[in-house]
Amino acid sequence: MEKKTFEYSDDFFFGWIVGFVDGEGCFCVSFNRKKSLPSNIEVRPSFSLSQKQLSLDSLKLLKSYFNCGGIRYSKKDGTYKFEVRNIRHLQTIIIPFFLKYSLKTNKKEDFLIFVSICDSISESLHLNTEGLIEIIDSAYKMNEPGKRKYTQEELLKFITS
Amino acid sequence: MEKKTFEYSDDFFFGWIVGFVDGEGCFCVSFNRKKSLPSNIEVRPSFSLSQKQLSLDSLKLLKSYFNCGGIRYSKKDGTYKFEVRNIRHLQTIIIPFFLKYSLKTNKKEDFLIFVSICDSISESLHLNTEGLIEIIDSAYKMNEPGKRKYTQEELLKFITS
Repeated sequence: MEKKTFEYSDDFFFGWIVGFVDGEGCFCVSFNRKKSLPSNIEVRPSFSLSQKQLSLDSLKLLKSYFNCGGIRYSKKDGTYKFEVRNIRHLQTIIIPFFLKYSLKTNKKEDFLIFVSICDSISESLHLNTEGLIEIIDSAYKMNEPGKRKYTQEELLKFITS
Repeated sequence: MEKKTFEYSDDFFFGWIVGFVDGEGCFCVSFNRKKSLPSNIEVRPSFSLSQKQLSLDSLKLLKSYFNCGGIRYSKKDGTYKFEVRNIRHLQTIIIPFFLKYSLKTNKKEDFLIFVSICDSISESLHLNTEGLIEIIDSAYKMNEPGKRKYTQEELLKFITS
């Protein structure tokens, strides 16, 4: 039987993941005010991709390949989101994949900042004020500034308050 | 010198195109009122993908591979759009590509309707009322209904007015 190499080759699938993430993926670092933490601020890096219910299978494909993360429904916009938040999974699965298979849009710039922030977190740099300020500064250079809960100034005030 | 097959293989690139289009591509059929036409309605199928200026290179990559279509700036949302409107290019370049390399999201359903509409146009079925009504009916099953200039009812009234 002739093999449909164009459809099922690993290269094609890896290319598809990169293109899909170039289109709809998000490498984000969000911050929550958490007074139980010494720094008052929780740093939450995540890799995610959202789709409507009709394309849920494409998210299952990502989850199945990466073998980590979860898919959840977002009431806010009626979409499903595949999301990886676990720092170990980000460091050992997600980041190595996109370091090997480069994004082709400007999202690559966000990804490289994301890598550097995950490295800082793995080195516990977010637990001291100086490191945290640097992480916040890097994170606020990423993505759409309009989507954030707090401005950078507000966030910095929380650290010292 | 070792070849980076994962980065530059055709399969990877084709997969990337499919993933990128799964994420951000659009197979659309729009309608314009045009009294100079016997049917009063112009049917315009198009394949497009929009990005911000920082990711303009990714659109150039598509244009260069498909070797058709154009890239233009949209004042409305400040993005650049790679778009193929020429029915011959759609029929001989774009459609065969996505028939060979299947989309993996629900966008595939839109694409299949798009293929059938382009076939109808190539057979000049849009030039008679019955064919045009069928095309409109199919097209209004695609994509987001909210984005259209006219409701299906308004459009049908134009034909007979």
